[in-house]
Amino acid sequence: MTDCSLAPAIAPTAAWMGETNEVTRTFLGAASIPGMINLGGGLPDPATFPTEELAELARAAVADHPAESLGYAPIEGLPDLRAALARRYSTGALKLGPENVLITTGGMQALDLVGKLYADKGDVIAAQSPTYLGALDAWRPRYPRYRPMHLETLASGAATALSGACFAYTVPNFSNPTGALVDLAARRALVAAARASGTPLVEDDPYGALYYDDTPLPRMIEIDAEAHPAARYDGPVIYLGTVSKELAPGLRVGWVIAAPEVIEQLTVVKQGSDLATSSLCQRMVCSALENGLMDRVRGATLDTYRPRRDVLCAAVEAHLSEHFTFTRPVGGMFVWITAKDASLDTDALMRVGLEHGVCISPSSVFDPEGRDRSSARLNFTANPAETLEEGVRRLARAVAALR
Amino acid sequence: MTDCSLAPAIAPTAAWMGETNEVTRTFLGAASIPGMINLGGGLPDPATFPTEELAELARAAVADHPAESLGYAPIEGLPDLRAALARRYSTGALKLGPENVLITTGGMQALDLVGKLYADKGDVIAAQSPTYLGALDAWRPRYPRYRPMHLETLASGAATALSGACFAYTVPNFSNPTGALVDLAARRALVAAARASGTPLVEDDPYGALYYDDTPLPRMIEIDAEAHPAARYDGPVIYLGTVSKELAPGLRVGWVIAAPEVIEQLTVVKQGSDLATSSLCQRMVCSALENGLMDRVRGATLDTYRPRRDVLCAAVEAHLSEHFTFTRPVGGMFVWITAKDASLDTDALMRVGLEHGVCISPSSVFDPEGRDRSSARLNFTANPAETLEEGVRRLARAVAALR
Repeated sequence: MTDCSLAPAIAPTAAWMGETNEVTRTFLGAASIPGMINLGGGLPDPATFPTEELAELARAAVADHPAESLGYAPIEGLPDLRAALARRYSTGALKLGPENVLITTGGMQALDLVGKLYADKGDVIAAQSPTYLGALDAWRPRYPRYRPMHLETLASGAATALSGACFAYTVPNFSNPTGALVDLAARRALVAAARASGTPLVEDDPYGALYYDDTPLPRMIEIDAEAHPAARYDGPVIYLGTVSKELAPGLRVGWVIAAPEVIEQLTVVKQGSDLATSSLCQRMVCSALENGLMDRVRGATLDTYRPRRDVLCAAVEAHLSEHFTFTRPVGGMFVWITAKDASLDTDALMRVGLEHGVCISPSSVFDPEGRDRSSARLNFTANPAETLEEGVRRLARAVAALR
Repeated sequence: MTDCSLAPAIAPTAAWMGETNEVTRTFLGAASIPGMINLGGGLPDPATFPTEELAELARAAVADHPAESLGYAPIEGLPDLRAALARRYSTGALKLGPENVLITTGGMQALDLVGKLYADKGDVIAAQSPTYLGALDAWRPRYPRYRPMHLETLASGAATALSGACFAYTVPNFSNPTGALVDLAARRALVAAARASGTPLVEDDPYGALYYDDTPLPRMIEIDAEAHPAARYDGPVIYLGTVSKELAPGLRVGWVIAAPEVIEQLTVVKQGSDLATSSLCQRMVCSALENGLMDRVRGATLDTYRPRRDVLCAAVEAHLSEHFTFTRPVGGMFVWITAKDASLDTDALMRVGLEHGVCISPSSVFDPEGRDRSSARLNFTANPAETLEEGVRRLARAVAALR
C-alpha cells in the first residue's frame, strides 16, 4: 500500500459547498475583532434576558419534570408546549390545536426543514427580495432557483410570483434585512395567490413581537383563516416563530404553525435532522408562556430597543444622509440604507468600514445572485446608544475614504 | 379568482419524501399503545438520569453564565466545551485541540451535517450493513446510493468498499442494530483504506461508553493517529459522540471530532441547519464533564443495563432459540436475533407481535433497500428485567401464531 501519511484531510464535498459566500465569512469573522463596532449582526442585547427567572425555570424543569426534560421529547415537540402555542396563536377565526404545531431547534431549523420538504434541485423558490441570509444558507444544499419578489410589486404580482414555485418565502414584519413592513394589501394578495395555486406560503416572523409604534398588522395565517374558516387551520400558510427575539436565543426553541398534514410531513423531516429539540429548553419555554414571563420580557425589550432605533436613525440622518436614503422602521432590529449614487459599492464599503472599526452587512449577502451592491443593513439592538452613534460616525469616515 | 376554499393543504414535496418507510412509522407509532412492551426502541432508562445534579447544573448555567447560556453560542460550540472534549478524547498519539471539535444538536444532527457536506444525488455511501435507521433517515434527502459493508468481510474488503465512496459509515462499538463489535483487524483495515483513498471514515460511537464486560477496543481515530502522528489530528476519521447514552438525551448535545479543516466545513453546514446548539445545554454538559458527573453516571448506568442484557439473552435462549440465533453483545443496548428459517419474515412478525402486545424493530428498516426480512432488533435498556422476560414470552407466542 502507498504511504499516504501526507494525504490531505480535505475530501471532495457536495457541489453547493462551492457556492458559499466569502463576504459572509468576512463580516461574520470581523465581529470578533477587538474594538470593532458590530452593526452587521442581528443579535439581541443580553441585558434583555430575564436571568433570574430563567435560572429558576431551568432548575424547576429538571427537578419537577425529570423524565420529560432529560429524556427524548417526541419529534414534534412536548405536548404541553404545542398546546400552549396553539392557544397563543388562536384567534376568533384562526382555530389551532396541538396538531397544528411543530417545535423546531430555533427558527433557523424551520427553514432547513421547509427546504428539505419542498425543494429539489432546480425548483423555484419565490422569495421576498432582498432575502434573509440565513434562509439562503439553509436552502443552498437543495440547489433551488430563486424568483425574487420585490416589496413594490408584491400586491400586484403575487399570483405570477407564486405560480409554479415549490414554495414562497416572506418576512412580513420588519423584513430581515430591510426592516420594511409588508402592507395589508400585499399580505392579502399573497394569501389569495397561495390559496389559488396551492403554493405553500412561508410567513417567517421572528420579529413580529418587536412593534415599537403601530398596532401589529394581522398575520397572513390569520388573514387566510378569516377567509377560509376551519375547525383546525388547514390552509397553505406556514407560519414560523421563535423565542430568540422574545426571550433568549440560547434556548434554540422555535415553532411552525401550519395545517396538520404539513406538520406531519415536517415531523418526518425533523426526525432525520436532529430527532427532537432539547426537551429541557422546551419545558422552560412552556413555563415562560404559561406564567406570563414572555409577555413581561417583551415590554422591557421594546423599551430597550425603541430609543436605540431612534438614535441610530438620527445618526444616519446626521452623518450619512448625503450619500444614503433610508426609511425609519416601525419595528424589528434593522435599518436599511441605500446609496444615492450607484457607484458607491457596499461590498467595498464593508471592507473599508472594517479598517475604520465598524462592521456592516452589505446587500450582496441578501441577494441569491450575490450581485446587489447598492445597500447595507445596520443593526440597532446589540449596542447602546453611544456605540451606535460612534459606529455611524466611523461609517461616515469610511464613506469619505471610499469616495 | 377561483374559489379555492377546498384546496388541499398538501403541496407537492421533494421526491425523497416518497421513499420513507411505512414499517418505521408502524413500529414508532406502536410504541405509544397502552400496555405495549416496547423492545423496538433505543431509549435509555430515565432512572439513569442524575436529576438532582442536573437541576443544579441547569440553574447554575443560567445564573453564573447568563450571557453565554442565554445568548447565541458560536456556531461551532462553546469554547470551554470544545476544549473539554478535546482533552477528554486526547491520548498519547491522538492530539486534539478545540479546533478539532464541533458541537452538534445530538448525534443525529452530525449525520445530517455529514450527508449535506459530502453527498450529492447518486453518490455512494459505503455503509456498515445492516445500517442505523437514523442514518438512513438523515441521508435520504441527499439521494445517495449505498454500498453495504458486511461485518464478515470488513477487514478483507475495506479498500474495495471505500474506493470512490463519498464517505464510509460505521458504528464500531455495538452496532445499531446488531450489537456487534467491529474487531481490531477490521478497524485497522478501515483506517488504512481511508488513509489510502482519502475517503472520509465516519466512526459513529453513541454506545462506546456502554462496555459491560471487556476492555474497550481502541477507537479508529486513535488507530489512525498512532500510525500518523500530528500536532493536531488531521486524518480522515470523523468521530461522532453524544451525551444521549451517557448523561441525558433531552439535552440534545453531541459532537464531531475530526481534522480542523473538516470541522470548518461542517461549521458552514451547521450554520444553515440550526445556527447553533442550545448554549444552556452546552454549558451544562461542559460542567458535567469538568466536575466528573459524566464519569459517575456511567458507572451507575452500566450496573443498571448489564443485568438487563443478561436477562434478555436468557429469555431469548429459553423462549426463542428454537427459531432464532443470536449473539450475546458485550455492550450497547441491543440483541439481534436472526431467524433460522428464511421463511420466517420479521416484517410479518413485527405486525403479529403488535397483536400480542410486544413491539420489535424488523431488519427491513435497517436495510437501505428495505428487503432484509431475516432478523429483528431487541432493546434491553428501556425496561426492567420482568418486563423484558414478558416481552420475549409474548414474542414467542407471536412466532407460534405466525408458523
